[in-house]
Amino acid sequence: MSKNDGSGEDGAGEDLAERVVAGDRRALARAITLVESTRADHRAESRELLAALLPRTGGAARLGVSGAPGVGKSTFIECFGLYLVEQGHRPAVLAVDPSSARGGGSILGDKTRMAELARAPAAFIRPSPTGRARGGVARRTAEAVLLCEAAGFDVVIVETVGVGQSETAVAEMVDMFLLLLAPGAGDELQGIKRGIVELADLVVVNKDDGDLAQAARRVAAEYQGALGLLRPLSPRWTPRVLLASALEGKGIDAVWRAIADFRDALGGDEIVSRRAGQARAWMWREVGESLMEELRGERRVANLVAELETRLAAGEVTPGAAAEALRAAIHGERAPAP
Amino acid sequence: MSKNDGSGEDGAGEDLAERVVAGDRRALARAITLVESTRADHRAESRELLAALLPRTGGAARLGVSGAPGVGKSTFIECFGLYLVEQGHRPAVLAVDPSSARGGGSILGDKTRMAELARAPAAFIRPSPTGRARGGVARRTAEAVLLCEAAGFDVVIVETVGVGQSETAVAEMVDMFLLLLAPGAGDELQGIKRGIVELADLVVVNKDDGDLAQAARRVAAEYQGALGLLRPLSPRWTPRVLLASALEGKGIDAVWRAIADFRDALGGDEIVSRRAGQARAWMWREVGESLMEELRGERRVANLVAELETRLAAGEVTPGAAAEALRAAIHGERAPAP
Repeated sequence: MSKNDGSGEDGAGEDLAERVVAGDRRALARAITLVESTRADHRAESRELLAALLPRTGGAARLGVSGAPGVGKSTFIECFGLYLVEQGHRPAVLAVDPSSARGGGSILGDKTRMAELARAPAAFIRPSPTGRARGGVARRTAEAVLLCEAAGFDVVIVETVGVGQSETAVAEMVDMFLLLLAPGAGDELQGIKRGIVELADLVVVNKDDGDLAQAARRVAAEYQGALGLLRPLSPRWTPRVLLASALEGKGIDAVWRAIADFRDALGGDEIVSRRAGQARAWMWREVGESLMEELRGERRVANLVAELETRLAAGEVTPGAAAEALRAAIHGERAPAP
Repeated sequence: MSKNDGSGEDGAGEDLAERVVAGDRRALARAITLVESTRADHRAESRELLAALLPRTGGAARLGVSGAPGVGKSTFIECFGLYLVEQGHRPAVLAVDPSSARGGGSILGDKTRMAELARAPAAFIRPSPTGRARGGVARRTAEAVLLCEAAGFDVVIVETVGVGQSETAVAEMVDMFLLLLAPGAGDELQGIKRGIVELADLVVVNKDDGDLAQAARRVAAEYQGALGLLRPLSPRWTPRVLLASALEGKGIDAVWRAIADFRDALGGDEIVSRRAGQARAWMWREVGESLMEELRGERRVANLVAELETRLAAGEVTPGAAAEALRAAIHGERAPAP
């Protein structure tokens, strides 16, 4: 039963906030739906809700988990989540899923996915959001992370599909980025998009079991070598490569230990200052995106953009001159002929 | 003697354009100084100049060369440039040098650097630009590339220091990105910033000579392995690792052959479409940057930004709410209290 103090919208907002804090999962689901909405009134409501909940946030280990299709990501996250529940933690799993927006099938579309973890009272799994604009996905997911924290979840896992669209955005909203790999038919490893390996604080090679065990070890050694060639993102932490088998539940505890080591190594100060930096970058990105979106939406500007892009592609105008023409048009000046 | 048709500014602009096309190196140097200037009248003049020269551009192989201090970058570029001259090419070398802006010393500050190449009549070396804003560096360098092409240089090398500030920007203005490495005192390789290896279309391990030859071969093998783990940026080209000794002039021809192979593999169509994509991205980046710059310059907005950034760092406001407040302030609306 949800209490309702009858004070209308605000009251409903406060009530929702209270219910989220009380750990009401349906309220949390509703709150996430609210932050996912692009309707102006919902945006206003969700800002209020987040403002009310903000003092309750920040308490979780925020983890990004990325892995290409076929590496056993669902099995791994379920196994890892169940392990966390056993250890007395409350994990929440959110998905950033650009693929479904392009009709590629949702990573969380399958209702039977992570069925056991979904039934665990201490866990929360959020199916992929519907209706998403690209920039918006990241903001909504980052806000959903805050909501999960307010609801008392102490490990929030943000899952991506490893196609490179959203990994950078996820890395900018989590404390630690985990890349999941698995041995495969030789060239499967090529499927890892450039740029993702370098985000990894921890690489976990899954399927260290049965016939694949030897291949998994080889993959782990290769990645250990490759990571050794990159300068660590933090002087306090050198990325590690671990072996695991989600199928056999092997190595899962070591993954959690590595996450704890990472948090110890960075220390609260570095995590706090990273999060502050992430928040600042996020604000600017959002302001920039919304301004650009407004611009592209203006017919006068949109027509000019179409013309400039054609002329750019044909090499008839320099990007600098095109930018200047666009800038002038935005300011309502007469555009100099570029 | 430069002719002057007496038509004032425009005439001078046309004259400068003609002199650049005629291959007058002092005119080219002056034209680059013009595009580097941030003065509004110079910007207008340089837009005119570039518009006049644009039909003459696009003819060069555009190469990015990055390497950390100590890998022998100057020696390599000089040796490579002299080889190109020997082969009948006309190389131009430009530098993107964020370090000197921070008082770290210019990579091209030493006048004796590449002295032999600098004396070659077929080559052109541009010392680092002075007075640079970060975003502007990339634009000005990309415009300088166009000027070099208009002046008839058929290989334009854009050099960076490998500290990760400018490599992405350079990768977005060249056809091919070459990473220069060298064996060193063990952990020197760690100096390569994450993200740079991933940009490389070609890795050249320098100092394959004397006592370092064996170490150079080991480094090459390690990188060959590491690159094998990344998906190539183009399905038509798999990054290669080559050994070279700029000191002994060894392997330089193989580097040029690999560059030719790269261009053959991609084909004119992919290079043209990449350049069109780069131009589009460049226009948008520049519009975005100039709008953000204007915003930060408005006192009312600047004060709000300072306040919001403090509150963000303290976790008192969400990035979404801060962005909304900023957006409202930009539009001159009453900002909702975030």
